[in-house]
Amino acid sequence: MSPRADAVRNRTKVLAAADEVFAELGTDAPTDEVARRAGVGIGTVFRHFPTKEGLLAAVFQERLRQVGSEAAAMATSEDPAEAFHELFTKLIGNSRTKQALGEALTAAGIDVDDAIAPVRDEVRGAIAILLAKAQEAGGVRGDIGVDEAIALLIGASQASAAVIDISMRARTLNVFLDGLRP
Amino acid sequence: MSPRADAVRNRTKVLAAADEVFAELGTDAPTDEVARRAGVGIGTVFRHFPTKEGLLAAVFQERLRQVGSEAAAMATSEDPAEAFHELFTKLIGNSRTKQALGEALTAAGIDVDDAIAPVRDEVRGAIAILLAKAQEAGGVRGDIGVDEAIALLIGASQASAAVIDISMRARTLNVFLDGLRP
Repeated sequence: MSPRADAVRNRTKVLAAADEVFAELGTDAPTDEVARRAGVGIGTVFRHFPTKEGLLAAVFQERLRQVGSEAAAMATSEDPAEAFHELFTKLIGNSRTKQALGEALTAAGIDVDDAIAPVRDEVRGAIAILLAKAQEAGGVRGDIGVDEAIALLIGASQASAAVIDISMRARTLNVFLDGLRP
Repeated sequence: MSPRADAVRNRTKVLAAADEVFAELGTDAPTDEVARRAGVGIGTVFRHFPTKEGLLAAVFQERLRQVGSEAAAMATSEDPAEAFHELFTKLIGNSRTKQALGEALTAAGIDVDDAIAPVRDEVRGAIAILLAKAQEAGGVRGDIGVDEAIALLIGASQASAAVIDISMRARTLNVFLDGLRP
């Protein structure tokens, strides 16, 4: 493997490990635990992410990018309306970690909007396509655009993070899903 | 007026001025602007709120307490179902300032949950009564409890803060209102 490919691979491993560690142990988790789980030296972590804030921001971006990838994949599904609802359901699952990441960034003096900027267009584009297909299929009300859909995804994520109990989350989510119907 | 009543009055004036100043100029606004608008000396502001974080937390609590008071007043209205929907609409109006206050607290190292703690039971109780009456009147679905309602209020507030345009906010809010119907 070329040194360049090796570096990309290591960065990916560090990001995946950091996501796991922050989700399990919180955003205060030590960086050497991230290195341990990634199977790399602590120097490798710092080479890719010189600051803890930079690592937090990268994990946050990666999570959003995954939402975008999922939305893009769902847009090609046979039932885009169902897929659009599923996107909301998926977001609920890891909303507490995402909220914790956002709070850790804010606490570190980083603007969450700035952290989102590098992936915003990609995620927005994917959600726009999925939404349009879901509306075309008659599964989602026609009076909302991509900005409202993103606002609702944020709202659902925050609402879900505010309740701990899984059945409460499901009941909270149902309000969104019913409200989204035509 | 007794010195005690005078102190309570000054505290109230400072809080109202701070709310106004933070909403207009942002949470970085200087404390002497707060003193100026309250019509008190800067020493009075610091006597009541020795730190900027303490002032931010008090403004945040006061905003939540107002939500509780509004919910309590609405619970006695002739149309509690309509009133419950109105509570969501009211929250949308100042969601950006509330979000900015929450972010400023987090950035100052204060846990928002801790800041909410002193007023939580009061606000929760008022919302629980309004919700029960709205459900009894047949205007709100029966499968949600007060925790889900609070989560949805948080979600609606965050969703609303995520869109700037007033008509987008209205369309976003409609998804909540339609989803809340039985």
